[in-house]
Amino acid sequence: MILYDYCRSSAAYRVRIALNLKGLAYEQVAVNLVTGEHREESHIERNAQALVPVLEDNGVQLTQSMAISEYLDEAYPQTSQLLTGSAIERAQQRAFALAIACDIHPVNNLRVLQYLVGEMGVDAEKKMQWYHHWIHTTFKALEMKLENRAAQTDFCCGDQPSIADICLVPQVFNANRFEVDMSLYPLIAAINERCLQIDAFRKAHPDLQPGA
Amino acid sequence: MILYDYCRSSAAYRVRIALNLKGLAYEQVAVNLVTGEHREESHIERNAQALVPVLEDNGVQLTQSMAISEYLDEAYPQTSQLLTGSAIERAQQRAFALAIACDIHPVNNLRVLQYLVGEMGVDAEKKMQWYHHWIHTTFKALEMKLENRAAQTDFCCGDQPSIADICLVPQVFNANRFEVDMSLYPLIAAINERCLQIDAFRKAHPDLQPGA
Repeated sequence: MILYDYCRSSAAYRVRIALNLKGLAYEQVAVNLVTGEHREESHIERNAQALVPVLEDNGVQLTQSMAISEYLDEAYPQTSQLLTGSAIERAQQRAFALAIACDIHPVNNLRVLQYLVGEMGVDAEKKMQWYHHWIHTTFKALEMKLENRAAQTDFCCGDQPSIADICLVPQVFNANRFEVDMSLYPLIAAINERCLQIDAFRKAHPDLQPGA
Repeated sequence: MILYDYCRSSAAYRVRIALNLKGLAYEQVAVNLVTGEHREESHIERNAQALVPVLEDNGVQLTQSMAISEYLDEAYPQTSQLLTGSAIERAQQRAFALAIACDIHPVNNLRVLQYLVGEMGVDAEKKMQWYHHWIHTTFKALEMKLENRAAQTDFCCGDQPSIADICLVPQVFNANRFEVDMSLYPLIAAINERCLQIDAFRKAHPDLQPGA
């Protein structure tokens, strides 16, 4: 497998964790989002959306981090599953993940921030206010969800990492990078710390990737 | 089943189509996003994120339209499936859907537009430019994907509607509502027209919902 990724892309970070958790080997090719390599013809051929990650498996190129994670579970069911349990439990794992993958990440994505500054003329302070606002809006809701769990669990949705934790850790990394006060979210912060003890998460860290 | 939805929410529109395609009966409860009913305690108890849709099935409340759609396939496999085929085909259906559900819809969501105007002081013209920009960015890529299909198909990913079409139709509805030039996307427009011939899609239309 080849993973076209970029050290600072949190969508790519999710897929690195997913591949590591499932114990699948992969080669990495860095597509530099800062110098614009994602807009080059060679990358558009891989992904018309000009985004990372792209996972190539048996010559087929797959896009969208959540779709790739689901694919890994379906194509490689013999290794540790990212979604587990009943249909309801799986729906809860997906919903937790999608709250981050839909409601925080795309709104705070690099291209959106660049558009805010370039096309909308928003200044640096307001850009930062925007960034924090969308993290707080959803983290507040997720912290509430964790508080209301029927029983204390080690990870977002149970006692093993799931697709939810795969999304949480890169989002907390971004929050820390932009100095969001994580003391407001003690349950999220504790789960993040617990994940970072696990090799699959540790090895996926942005600082350890090609091009970092 | 009870669907907490709102006529103008395109995430709720997706779930109405999904339920209709699967032939599942449901009761609707309107949560008015314009008057702020989604921020009331009674709705926060259903969904800490204060968003619609919420689907209640056997007393369990599920959130996030994509997670709900996947749940319906897993919990009711005997009816028409929203995801079909091999792991690769299912990944392609999900990726098409997620390009809309992650990369257009959340960035153009009502609460984001309200924040742009209220907190960022963006004027009406620039707000509309923003709205159009994110639709064009992803529709351009999806139109290219459709052009590059190995074979002509009736729907986004094959000859029956899938989770991809469930996301496409509400997004085209929004594009038309805000006067995006859909003649730029003839393949998307043709699939949308084909979907609208189907009862499951027609009955889910915003104009036909309680509170419209």
